[in-house]
Parts: sequence; C-alpha cells; structure tokens
Amino acid sequence: MNHIEPFPVAPTPEFQRRAQQKLDRKTKPPGSLGHLEEVAARLADIQQTLEPTVAKKRVCIFAASHGVCGEGVSAYPAAVTGQMVLNFLNGGAAINVLARHGGIEVHVIDVGVEDAATTALGEERGYFVRKLRPGTRNWRREPAMTAPECAAALDAGREQVQLALRAGVQLLGIGEMGIGNTSSASALYVALLGFSPNTAVGRGTGIDDATLQRKVEVVAEAVARYRPEAALAVDPARFWLETVGGYEIAAMVGVILEASRQSLAIVVDGFIATAAAAVAFALEPESRRVCYFSHRSDECAHGAALTALGVRPLLDLQMRLGEGTGAALAMHIIEAAAKVIVEMATFESAGVSENAPAVLS
Amino acid sequence: MNHIEPFPVAPTPEFQRRAQQKLDRKTKPPGSLGHLEEVAARLADIQQTLEPTVAKKRVCIFAASHGVCGEGVSAYPAAVTGQMVLNFLNGGAAINVLARHGGIEVHVIDVGVEDAATTALGEERGYFVRKLRPGTRNWRREPAMTAPECAAALDAGREQVQLALRAGVQLLGIGEMGIGNTSSASALYVALLGFSPNTAVGRGTGIDDATLQRKVEVVAEAVARYRPEAALAVDPARFWLETVGGYEIAAMVGVILEASRQSLAIVVDGFIATAAAAVAFALEPESRRVCYFSHRSDECAHGAALTALGVRPLLDLQMRLGEGTGAALAMHIIEAAAKVIVEMATFESAGVSENAPAVLS
Repeated sequence: MNHIEPFPVAPTPEFQRRAQQKLDRKTKPPGSLGHLEEVAARLADIQQTLEPTVAKKRVCIFAASHGVCGEGVSAYPAAVTGQMVLNFLNGGAAINVLARHGGIEVHVIDVGVEDAATTALGEERGYFVRKLRPGTRNWRREPAMTAPECAAALDAGREQVQLALRAGVQLLGIGEMGIGNTSSASALYVALLGFSPNTAVGRGTGIDDATLQRKVEVVAEAVARYRPEAALAVDPARFWLETVGGYEIAAMVGVILEASRQSLAIVVDGFIATAAAAVAFALEPESRRVCYFSHRSDECAHGAALTALGVRPLLDLQMRLGEGTGAALAMHIIEAAAKVIVEMATFESAGVSENAPAVLS
Repeated sequence: MNHIEPFPVAPTPEFQRRAQQKLDRKTKPPGSLGHLEEVAARLADIQQTLEPTVAKKRVCIFAASHGVCGEGVSAYPAAVTGQMVLNFLNGGAAINVLARHGGIEVHVIDVGVEDAATTALGEERGYFVRKLRPGTRNWRREPAMTAPECAAALDAGREQVQLALRAGVQLLGIGEMGIGNTSSASALYVALLGFSPNTAVGRGTGIDDATLQRKVEVVAEAVARYRPEAALAVDPARFWLETVGGYEIAAMVGVILEASRQSLAIVVDGFIATAAAAVAFALEPESRRVCYFSHRSDECAHGAALTALGVRPLLDLQMRLGEGTGAALAMHIIEAAAKVIVEMATFESAGVSENAPAVLS
C-alpha cells in the first residue's frame, strides 16, 4: 500500500496505551464509559502504573487581594476576600461543604490578603500565611507585582505540592479567592490567548452593565499599554503574570509547574485557575500532562479558554463561584475512573461473552 | 402600566421558591452554584422541606431479555444479559464499582431474563426474581408482552419504591440490563416523541453499519405496522409500552409512577431509562416533578430525547453503558446540592459583606 501514516507528533504515552488495553478487557462494550476511560488512562500515565489510586484528595484555595479593585471592577467590596478566608477557616463556605461531602482536605493559603484574618488556626489545621504584600498593585497604573514577589508566589504554590506529596495526596485541586481576580484572568486571556477584551471580560460575581463596560476598558487599556514591553520580554508569559496577574494566580502556576515535575495529578477549578494553567502551559508546555479541567464555568470566556487550550472539562453545571468548588465535585469522577480500571471484572474473570456476530434471523 | 404578565402556567412550587430564597442568603454571589441550586430547590420541593437530605441512596437495575434479539440487532449474544446479572451479583460490573464508590446500595431485579442466574443470593442481598417470562416476544412479529405481563412489570417497579421508602432511601436510581433494549427504546422514541427511525436508532453496544441498517428497518417496520392500532388505543403510551417495550422498561415506568405518588426523588440513568420516563410522563405528566436526569448518553438520539422531554441532564461524559452507571455518578452531585442548602453559612452568620456598589476610582 502507498498510504503513508502521518508522523505521530505526540504518541500516546506507554502507560496510557496499556491502560486503555486493560479497560478494553473489562465487562463493558469498548469505550462505553466515555470520558471516564480517558481520565483513568491518563491517571495511569501520571502515576506510571496500571493500578492508579486516589488515596487522598486535597483542595488548595489561594487567596489574595487586588489593587485593581480600586478601578471599580467588582460587584463586591475588596474586604470580602478577607471575610471569605475566615469563612473558609470556619467551614461555612461552599467549598467546605463540597469538600466534606467528597472526603477532601482543604488548605487555605493567604498569599496577599489585605485584611489580616484573626484566627487561632495554624498550619496543622490547613491555614498557611504566605502573605507577600497586602494585595497586588493596581495594574491599571503600574505592574501588579515585582519579579521577586512573583517568584515568592510561585514558591508558595510549589510548597503546597511538596506538602501534598509528603501527606500522600494523589489528587490536588487548585482554586482561589480574590475579589477583582476575574479582571486579572481576563487580562491574561487577552494577552496570552489573543482574546478580544470584549470576549475575555465577563460579569464575574455579577456586575452591572456600566461596571462591565469599565472592566472591559481597564483590561483593554492595560494590555495595550504593556504590549510593547511584553514583546521585548525574555519570557512573555512570566511578564504578563507579573504585570496583570495576581498573587493567587501566580501561586497556582507554581502548583502546576511543580506538579508536572513531580507527576502529581492536578484538578484545575474554573475561570481564574484556568488562567493560571494558560500561563503554566506557556511556560512549560509539558505541564498539561498532569492537569484535569474540572468544569466549564458560566463566566462567559471560560469555554473559549478551554477550547483554546485544547482541553475538555469534566462538568458543565453553569457554576461560577471559584474557591475550588468545581474541582471538588470533579474529584469524585476522577476517583471513580481510577476505581473502574482497578476494580472492574474482565470478560474472562466474570464469564461474560464478548462482542460476537449476533444471531441472524 | 399596560404590560400584562403572561399567565403562569406552572408556577414555581412553594418549597422550591422558598429554597431559592434560602440559597440567596448563602455566602456566594446569587446563582453562582448554577444547576446545583436548581437541584437543591427541586429536592426541597420533592421532600417538602427547606432542609432536604439524602440519607440513603440506592440504584435498581432491572434486567430482562428481548425476543427482538432474534432479528440480529445487537453486537452481543442475548446470553450476555444473564451473564451480566451474575456479574452484578458478584460485584464486578461498572455499576458495582461506581455504587461502592458513591456509597450506594444496588438492587438487581430479574423481570424476565432468559437464562436463570444460578446464585445463592436472596432478597436480603439485593437480588429480586420477579421473572414474568424468559424474555419478551419478538415484537417484529407480535406484541412484546401481554397487558397482564405489562401490569406485573409495572408492579415489580412499584414494589421497589415501597422497599426503598421502607429502608429510608431518599434517592433512587433506575438503570437496566437487557441485550436488545436499545431497539425497544428507539421504537418508543419513534412512537411517542415522533422521532424518525434514522434519528432514533443508534449503535447501542457498538453494532456495525449492516446491523444498524437492519435495526432501523426493524424499528421503522414495527412502529408503522402498529400505528393504526395505537390510534384506537385508550392509552397510546401504555399500548406502545406493551407492544414494543421490554419488561425492564415497564418496571422503570412503574418506579417513576409510584415515586411520583410517594414523592421520592428518582435519578434516571441513560437512553433506555429515559424511554421509560417518556412513557411515564405521557401516562402521568406530573411524574416529571420527581425525576432528575443523570447524564446525556453517547447513544445518538439521547440528547434529542432529553430536549424533547424538556429536561436537562447533570452530566455529559459520553457514557453509553446503562446499568445505572450515569445515575450512580450523578447522585454525588444531587447529594452535594442538598448539603449546600443545609450546611452553608449565610452572609449574616459568616459576617461577609453582600453585593454592594464597588468603590469607584
């Protein structure tokens, strides 16, 4: 035959391929568990085993304040960021409810919340104070953070991967809290994925038309102003992260990069966490291997961002809360996939007949 | 004002409305938990309380053989139905894995499997033999079941609702096993929802093009032949269920009708279970109130069927296995929604500021 096979640019990794073969011996029509099968096979690759497990699950919520709130881009006052950190620590937020429901630990990492949380809780209870500064600078006027601050925020994320591995966590979710951070995420999508400001900017926590218009202008103006400088930057993704990002976004970038190095499975939450993934993938393309995308957020540009990154979310429940809530729900599905490949009977072991020509009438 | 409000055909039930008000006091932007909020508010209505719970979950798998298999419409031999019943009882099937993962009990109800399962398991272990006949008749040649058989199958379903209520089950999933039953489901969609045979018939467990063509012909021929008789029937939905249905489909219809009477929340699985819902909704439209639809199956006509019924599935993972596997996964989300409305803090209790005009620059 003269047919030439296209060159396999990204061949299926060995364990993923063997995992799919293993799944095809299970008592079900081939492929009939849909995305669950791909999720299981990818976890087999991440863990380099045909018996992947999800022994322990944890969600890290990175919280920080945003100077850009001074531009009037959010429906909620900036103080809500600190109030919600206390709510997380008291167990009353949506993420706490969903984490308890899913048997998931919660870590809260303050990487720059303006108001100090007054609590006796310490690291043994999952509260980490890695405050770099009481919030980023207003990036409409000056870069959000300095290079050393960005490095420290990345480190705060890397540290959580180390802690997770030491604790035996096999599935680590990343979520965030930071009034104003949909503006940062939108600016990153404009800068890194080429979205128009009108496409990238949405209503966040629920802003009105006038605020939406202002938010579009703030994002459009800032990205346009910094673009010439970005073109000269050694690493444009890092430049944009420092310039229009947030400390919590940088920390999530750090999680993804370190998880890629350590081969730990990450569950990316929603609109903001996906912006962190966009930065991480630009910095180190191979880091996509460890990332699951939990859900398609109702924030309008999220679907387009997922498509631009070439990834498929597990859930589509029109959620738009952040905090890691989508990641927490999706973990149930990823763990289910791991159990399918480990626990299901095979055609041989169960004595079930395989696909065969049906009896014709 | 001269504006006239449209007449509220189906006003939001009292508890659903009050539940949504309660959700709006929780520490999150209004509506930001998306479908979870609607799921919670509907459960509040079904249970007539603002503190809905999911104390116990169970999936019922109704199994039966199909005479229409003699027409060569499936990729698997008919004997697989009985073999899979044994697999369920031995805990090796996908539904067993997902049920264990979700803390869900499994009941297996044989309502007409051709081959007798040889097992020592009894009802105390969740195995119910309510065999009406060793499989339906081949409905290409004669009606699938008699009226008394259909009534008995409906009763086998109703019985499971009674057992569930007695055991304190608050979320009951319905799934099935029956080689050949995608043909029955497709015929019901053609007959009840007006689908064309080409639209309604899919590849089921994975048939080839020739088998697909034969399956389309079998469905088209049978529905066309029985249509004049259906037009004269007192109850056309019941007529079609008896004529082209299956015992397991009739049993699931019985579950939905009885659950509607008893106000028990039902989780409908996939392509076949949705056909049972289509019959139940045609018989008693108010029965839709208690039904959640777990997922959009990869079987091609399922999305169209859900749309025609005006319902929205919780998951879309391209699964097409049946057995209640989609229902089992979706239960995690429904239970999460119940916990959100009960456990989350309010703005007042958590001391979090509500939506307020943002500070303008």
